[in-house]
Amino acid sequence: MASDTRQRLVRTTGRLLRQQGYAATGLNQVIAVSDAPKGSLYFHFPGGKEELAAAAVEHFAGRITAALDKGLANAPTVGEAVTQFFDDYIDHVERTEFRDGCAVATVALDEAHTHPLLASAATDAFTTWTGRIAEALVAEGRAPDEAAGLATLVIATIEGALVMAKGQQSVEPLVRTRDTLRAVLAPPNPSEIA
Amino acid sequence: MASDTRQRLVRTTGRLLRQQGYAATGLNQVIAVSDAPKGSLYFHFPGGKEELAAAAVEHFAGRITAALDKGLANAPTVGEAVTQFFDDYIDHVERTEFRDGCAVATVALDEAHTHPLLASAATDAFTTWTGRIAEALVAEGRAPDEAAGLATLVIATIEGALVMAKGQQSVEPLVRTRDTLRAVLAPPNPSEIA
Repeated sequence: MASDTRQRLVRTTGRLLRQQGYAATGLNQVIAVSDAPKGSLYFHFPGGKEELAAAAVEHFAGRITAALDKGLANAPTVGEAVTQFFDDYIDHVERTEFRDGCAVATVALDEAHTHPLLASAATDAFTTWTGRIAEALVAEGRAPDEAAGLATLVIATIEGALVMAKGQQSVEPLVRTRDTLRAVLAPPNPSEIA
Repeated sequence: MASDTRQRLVRTTGRLLRQQGYAATGLNQVIAVSDAPKGSLYFHFPGGKEELAAAAVEHFAGRITAALDKGLANAPTVGEAVTQFFDDYIDHVERTEFRDGCAVATVALDEAHTHPLLASAATDAFTTWTGRIAEALVAEGRAPDEAAGLATLVIATIEGALVMAKGQQSVEPLVRTRDTLRAVLAPPNPSEIA
């Protein structure tokens, strides 16, 4: 089915972006790994590699947004939700032996200034994620400006700790920043301050 | 002079890594931009592209370490030194129109799991930077474990905010995280807590 092929192309591209970045990801590799008919790529993505990668970034970002939403809805505090999110990421990078990073970060770092579709997909991802966390922090009693600052700190920390973890091939940066952020995010309720 | 050529190759490679990452940086481009004799690259770097890139990451990391050391020695608090460091980076990314990122981050994200020399150079950079900030925080009265956590948070935040700034082509993530970190890093002196 055509839409199956499209999904396979998008998922394969997302996985390759997470592992090796945009420049190293060739369309022939995407077609081979997806086991997709050669003509299908330009049929579904007439804009070629950039359009396909932007769709992969959007798909990846949507999955992360869904995970954040679920965590924020279920955890007792934003700090606990963020801690759980870090724990899931720690599991994931250990399971993939530090191969997988963030599909948004890799295009943001190396491609955004030359690829408008990728810059737009990265901007949407970062603003959606920080927006969700900021909303939850406001619901927890933070002022909007403080909430926006802390939410940006959370997303920047996850992205940066992941860069460090991949560089060091160790989860230590994720563990340390998880624990430090938990203290920073303790709700602003005097009864919570020990 | 031979050592001049080596320096030019290293600096050019560092600049290209910051702008486009490892995969997109070809040796022919390095030679052309450095205006270096063709044979000089393998004369100075018999290990080829990975050895050259590792030297460029080390050179870049050393410059950042020197800037951190200078800032920590001159600012009245670690929080002020970190704020100044963010301000310098904000100036730099604006001046380069969001082309320049961190040479360490780009190899950490996409190459460390397949290139041992680059993983080693990235690990050295991250552990040196966090070590310097942790030492300064201990001197400011923090417990060693808390200092290590906060230092990792600072470096992760800079790396992640830079990823976000490049993705969004905006300094806003750097500005917001700078201001949030300044509050987090306020010295643990009761008279400082308003």
